Amino acid sequence: MPSARFEACLLEKKTLIDTWLERLMPGPEEEPAILHQSMRYSVFAGGKRLRPVLALAAYEICGGRGEAIYPVACGLELMHTYSLIHDDLPCMDDDDLRRGQPTNHKVYGEAMAVLAGDALLTLAFECFLGRGTDGSVSQETLGLLARRIASAAGSVGLVGGQAMDVNRFSQDRRLETLVSTCRLKTGRLIQVALECGAIIAGAGDEVLNVFSRYGRALGLAFQITDDILNVMGDAKTMGKAVHSDASLDKVTFPELLGVDRARSYARQQVDETKSALSPLGGAAWFLTELAGQLLERQA
Amino acid sequence: MPSARFEACLLEKKTLIDTWLERLMPGPEEEPAILHQSMRYSVFAGGKRLRPVLALAAYEICGGRGEAIYPVACGLELMHTYSLIHDDLPCMDDDDLRRGQPTNHKVYGEAMAVLAGDALLTLAFECFLGRGTDGSVSQETLGLLARRIASAAGSVGLVGGQAMDVNRFSQDRRLETLVSTCRLKTGRLIQVALECGAIIAGAGDEVLNVFSRYGRALGLAFQITDDILNVMGDAKTMGKAVHSDASLDKVTFPELLGVDRARSYARQQVDETKSALSPLGGAAWFLTELAGQLLERQA
Repeated sequence: MPSARFEACLLEKKTLIDTWLERLMPGPEEEPAILHQSMRYSVFAGGKRLRPVLALAAYEICGGRGEAIYPVACGLELMHTYSLIHDDLPCMDDDDLRRGQPTNHKVYGEAMAVLAGDALLTLAFECFLGRGTDGSVSQETLGLLARRIASAAGSVGLVGGQAMDVNRFSQDRRLETLVSTCRLKTGRLIQVALECGAIIAGAGDEVLNVFSRYGRALGLAFQITDDILNVMGDAKTMGKAVHSDASLDKVTFPELLGVDRARSYARQQVDETKSALSPLGGAAWFLTELAGQLLERQA
Repeated sequence: MPSARFEACLLEKKTLIDTWLERLMPGPEEEPAILHQSMRYSVFAGGKRLRPVLALAAYEICGGRGEAIYPVACGLELMHTYSLIHDDLPCMDDDDLRRGQPTNHKVYGEAMAVLAGDALLTLAFECFLGRGTDGSVSQETLGLLARRIASAAGSVGLVGGQAMDVNRFSQDRRLETLVSTCRLKTGRLIQVALECGAIIAGAGDEVLNVFSRYGRALGLAFQITDDILNVMGDAKTMGKAVHSDASLDKVTFPELLGVDRARSYARQQVDETKSALSPLGGAAWFLTELAGQLLERQA
């Protein structure tokens, strides 16, 4: 069970992130209204806000105060949302449900879903580059950050991982290949979220390395538990179809390792997150508990 | 007929742009190879390179020398290419041919086409933000430029125009609506290409306004002639399906105005480009001739 302190801290972060997302997104009446409604539909469909929460946590641990982190953190959530919308399309994973609600293309049609994803990706860069900023971070730092994020999100990052996933039939079924697909698809954006928080707070390379190592292990742990939930989970709690990986003939951790060994592999990654954080001592309690919670999550 | 000087100057620009695109893009063997091949397929399918040519021309007119403009100019071409790939998808315009060759999804499948578009958009931002740069432009200027481009490319720019196009059945059939769709869909990226050239060359607001006005009229002239070619053109010369607008029930300039009045409307816009350029005198000869060529183009 998460501690009360953890739950309060998580809720506070998520509330602030939602307030900022509302501030940064075009309103539902703004033209072209149907596009903006489609974008908002997926952004406000109740995500876990994992990436912006990580960015905020790293920022605070590094002594960051003030609001400079929010537009960047929210940009990461917009980026994550775009990738989900495109990933759910009929030509990709063909999912009808996401977070308990019909997927974007089920509501707005495929064309608008493609465009909503495109517009969210573009809006994410506006946020990284100063939309909604209080001006306390230099344009130079924002530019360097945005470039780092672009590299983590592109053809040798997030999109590259998706491409390997789509192209899975020509891949071998080795753990190594699965780990590297997962590092691209999930790991790099999680890692860069933490790095963003640290960089905006002005942290040095040593602390940056702590977060990189933590993020690397966390991303892997997250994907493994996601795969296990897809096999073992309950569709109602998950808010999306379960067993969908098997029907798409996806290579997953439980399929390669069996559920028990996959669980212990995830536990190993969570241990690695804890070792990674040790130089930060008690200041990192929130991130330590967050990683531990992964093993217990039901959705 | 274009002058020999114009043709030589255009060819020189296009050759340099192609060299830089090759330098900026991941190689076809780099993993994930199939994704990189899909991206390269559309980028090197023989486009007119209009946007980067405009950026280069504006840069030179403003006294810009050196190579600082190339990564930004090429980023604009990557952005244009992503929008074409997504626009051709079955759920959008469902086009089988583009520039005389099968469209991206016909060769690589829909999923890879969606991802190639996503990766090109992301790579475009890497280019705007310093990929391949010689370091002569400050990170601050690059960041501000990238933000300006993001705004022109997003939900109240390029993607917004596409959304209005997709959603055309609920639109009125007024010239005003068509003009504003076209300004978003085509105009803003053309305008921002010229502005990029001027800004990187260090031009002031007065010159910037000249290019904004020129780009605004040029974008409109370009779209009108595109529509006319879709009605009157020859599929072989065009390298793509003609009469496709009518079969999609698209509102176009020739349909609203008739071909003759559409032609004279395009001519009017070309005249406007010339007035816009007049403060620059002879230095702007290339842009003047380029606008005039639009009226004669066959593809």
